[in-house]
Amino acid sequence: VSGSPPHPSAGPTVADAGESALVARIRARAGEPPSFIHIGIGDDAAVIEPPRGGLDVVTTDALVEDVHFRRAWTNPESIGWKAVVVNLSDLAAMGASPRAVFLTLALPDALPLADFDAIVEGVVRAASSAGAALAGGNIARSPGPLVVDVTAMGSARRRRVLTRSGARAGDLLYVTGDVGGAAAGLAVRSRGIDPDSWTEPMRACVARYERPDARLRCGRLVAAARAASACIDLSDGLADAVRQLAAASGTGAQLDASLVPMQPGAAEWLGADPLARAIAGGEDYELLFSVPPRRRRAFHAAVARCRALTATHVGSVVAGSGAWLVRDGQRSELAPGFSHFSA
Amino acid sequence: VSGSPPHPSAGPTVADAGESALVARIRARAGEPPSFIHIGIGDDAAVIEPPRGGLDVVTTDALVEDVHFRRAWTNPESIGWKAVVVNLSDLAAMGASPRAVFLTLALPDALPLADFDAIVEGVVRAASSAGAALAGGNIARSPGPLVVDVTAMGSARRRRVLTRSGARAGDLLYVTGDVGGAAAGLAVRSRGIDPDSWTEPMRACVARYERPDARLRCGRLVAAARAASACIDLSDGLADAVRQLAAASGTGAQLDASLVPMQPGAAEWLGADPLARAIAGGEDYELLFSVPPRRRRAFHAAVARCRALTATHVGSVVAGSGAWLVRDGQRSELAPGFSHFSA
Repeated sequence: VSGSPPHPSAGPTVADAGESALVARIRARAGEPPSFIHIGIGDDAAVIEPPRGGLDVVTTDALVEDVHFRRAWTNPESIGWKAVVVNLSDLAAMGASPRAVFLTLALPDALPLADFDAIVEGVVRAASSAGAALAGGNIARSPGPLVVDVTAMGSARRRRVLTRSGARAGDLLYVTGDVGGAAAGLAVRSRGIDPDSWTEPMRACVARYERPDARLRCGRLVAAARAASACIDLSDGLADAVRQLAAASGTGAQLDASLVPMQPGAAEWLGADPLARAIAGGEDYELLFSVPPRRRRAFHAAVARCRALTATHVGSVVAGSGAWLVRDGQRSELAPGFSHFSA
Repeated sequence: VSGSPPHPSAGPTVADAGESALVARIRARAGEPPSFIHIGIGDDAAVIEPPRGGLDVVTTDALVEDVHFRRAWTNPESIGWKAVVVNLSDLAAMGASPRAVFLTLALPDALPLADFDAIVEGVVRAASSAGAALAGGNIARSPGPLVVDVTAMGSARRRRVLTRSGARAGDLLYVTGDVGGAAAGLAVRSRGIDPDSWTEPMRACVARYERPDARLRCGRLVAAARAASACIDLSDGLADAVRQLAAASGTGAQLDASLVPMQPGAAEWLGADPLARAIAGGEDYELLFSVPPRRRRAFHAAVARCRALTATHVGSVVAGSGAWLVRDGQRSELAPGFSHFSA
């Protein structure tokens, strides 16, 4: 995360450049497609060799200016990066490996061309860091906000796909990494604190908010080991993930407040009840797994191979229905959050 | 095309309903997915059985309010329909068969819930009319225009994919159906003429503009017969299609004005030079093929099987470069139009 002030507004805009010049800039940045992409950017559609013996996994998610990001806060390269990563995180939650991304941009006429280039750069970097290629998309004008919509395609092995719906009573709930960082990063940004005065923990929280990473390796390794009964990503917060996983599995679930791993330095930005904010706040892009007790050892072995990532036991799947928070010996319903029209 | 006035603004809005209720409405309308969709709406991503022995073909295209449509003119069901068809048209131009569509909606808070339902209904109808299922997507809030972004996936047989780039000098250019109808329909709408007073040709032109059909069967049959050397759809107009096909193929091309099939009744809505407007106006969603002379018979045989659709010889691929219009014995450069960041 750069602490530099956002983009200058001088210089040419996307309207000055025109659509065909914008396409040429994207093609130049995207580079040569890998061999499994038979036809990439520039025809009516992309043509892709299907995964050999595997399954196609497809997801789409959009970032809308002033809903999901503010151009005054986040540099355009990070906007492009994050638009891809939110999709890669969905692939991670299925245990899939990314192969191709498609980019739809709705562009305000006044968007500086330099910002356009930076958004595309972020998209290409995030895709290629995950082994995926930018294979197509389209550009439209927007009379309103900038919209960056990404579709990501990946592959998964048969009978190794993770879903939300396989959890059974008695399974253990694990979350990767830690939570609350993205919510704290948003708080730091929204209070307008000069980046030059940020401490390292503040910087780390803003990075979680603006430049997340998808837990692809972890999702893949746990899926390959068949070590989890279900998985979901934390795009709408840990509480929501627990609730969604339980609902999709037709079970109940409970989260133990004392076990939730908070990101260091996040709590002080999260108001009077940091834990509540941390689990309600979305955008941490960690993974929540349910693990049958007999697969616990296999799960830990898979996570141990996930480079510097840990998984923390935070609760359990229980009989019945509903999602519960156990805190100071009290059991209360997890407050409802957002649900995602997701796939 | 209904001539009825647009949506009432009374009644509940999408903001009243909330995201999870909107998702439930989409799932109910989408119905049960076909067996090749292992996991559809409701998980982190869709899981799809790849086409057996074939290739994945993927395209994405967005309709933005007040850029591509106006809610005051077009009923919401037609907006959803068209958002899918513009993508199916890209699959048609590759000779592909649609399998799945994904829907991203950026929704203004004040959008009536009834309009939301109608948009989804149009999406599902257009998809299922082409044999494709709505397999996922996502919903976001929009502080500005309504954005309906669709990704369509299809399959194509190996060595039967049509591209833009295979045309060779001496090939003949054919266009399906007729042109100018969509531009005339837009003119009828923009002049605010009372639908009750529309003649049948006016109604047909508005239908071309608001409720196009993709030439899927034609693309597929011509591709299967290997009867064309290249193909592109007319999303940005016939002139642009000729130019793009020539540029992608590294050839020149010329269009003969006297051969262009105009939609009946369109000319009177297209100003002083209807032909120029008809070929510059986009959105007819016909297909342009280049056909090697020795494949002419096979091409006509394939088109003869395309239910009530004709193809008209409109020009030829020529040596060199550039795109030309021959009119009244004069040869002039085809005016540049839009180009598409398309795939």
